[in-house]
Amino acid sequence: MTDRTSADLWPAGGAGERTEAARRLLLAAVESFARRGYHATTTRDIATAAGMSPAALYIHYSSKSALLSEISRTGHQATLDLVERAAAADLPPVEQMRLLVEEFTCWHARGHTVGRIVNHELHALPEDDFAVVAELRRRIEETVRRIIEAGVATGAFDVQDVRTAARAVTSLGIDVSRWYTDRSSETPEELGRRYGVLVLRMLGAAG
Amino acid sequence: MTDRTSADLWPAGGAGERTEAARRLLLAAVESFARRGYHATTTRDIATAAGMSPAALYIHYSSKSALLSEISRTGHQATLDLVERAAAADLPPVEQMRLLVEEFTCWHARGHTVGRIVNHELHALPEDDFAVVAELRRRIEETVRRIIEAGVATGAFDVQDVRTAARAVTSLGIDVSRWYTDRSSETPEELGRRYGVLVLRMLGAAG
Repeated sequence: MTDRTSADLWPAGGAGERTEAARRLLLAAVESFARRGYHATTTRDIATAAGMSPAALYIHYSSKSALLSEISRTGHQATLDLVERAAAADLPPVEQMRLLVEEFTCWHARGHTVGRIVNHELHALPEDDFAVVAELRRRIEETVRRIIEAGVATGAFDVQDVRTAARAVTSLGIDVSRWYTDRSSETPEELGRRYGVLVLRMLGAAG
Repeated sequence: MTDRTSADLWPAGGAGERTEAARRLLLAAVESFARRGYHATTTRDIATAAGMSPAALYIHYSSKSALLSEISRTGHQATLDLVERAAAADLPPVEQMRLLVEEFTCWHARGHTVGRIVNHELHALPEDDFAVVAELRRRIEETVRRIIEAGVATGAFDVQDVRTAARAVTSLGIDVSRWYTDRSSETPEELGRRYGVLVLRMLGAAG
């Protein structure tokens, strides 16, 4: 059940402050939220899935919402990172956008389980954590808009409403996590390439 | 809280077999599922929101999932109807597609509350009801594909992979119900028009 993106978000034996127990709890929380929905999941469900006692869970996370917050923050940070990498690439706006859409689409296909939680359980975040995640989302949208604006400035893109176009670009990628399954006929990479072509056309880039 | 689309799906004083009590229960279920999530909602929550006793609810619906099934079936049928209307319009494929995207987008913006339930709670449907809804979804996708194929045949569209393009068209519209709120800066109609333009470009229709 653990998809590749979840495993990448919290790598085993990774350096740093996250313990192996915390990692197992995050992966178990992703699985439990995906199977039952966030609201119907108990900390006991998560602890059991991680092979721990509920008391052991509380050593690492004070509540179910603390787990959701860390999942949501890590997931959003990972997508912001790839979006910012594309925007920083030494490429013209058209190729930055192609790279961005390919990677963003691929991330949401490979990580459809965690992507669904990250994008559909925002309302369940505690207020302070929601503010952090909302800021990450704002920066994702803004980076996409900046690439579009740069392309419009060079004449490579032709867009009437930059805000709506940027929204459509991120929406198309995010929604992949809703419908993509491991039985889908396209690989995440194929889907990314095809979506890259569709988005460039949408932005009026000459084919 | 009742959005216009929900009210349209189950009109007050509508002819036919649906009683006023059933209508109130459906609207209360939409509100309760949207607020708490499907799994965490009890039949008591729904009955209370409808101003009824739990016993009175069971006169009309045998279970919480029976309410979800009716909401999902009605919502999917309404979107299939508008998609089929667009495909049956006496217009060339480009204009059929524009109409389809405008209406489909507008429906998911106006009906974002019910749209979220219809599209995000499929896994909670009982098996037989899921099969009915899956068939409606299949027909929506197929109708979109048919318009694209007709446009490719006349040379109005230029599409490499019809299946992926059709998926992108429906995905873009469905995802509107995730992010659209009544505080969004565009009206549902404006968003529909802009998405119509973006999709036609995506399909390679000359602007």
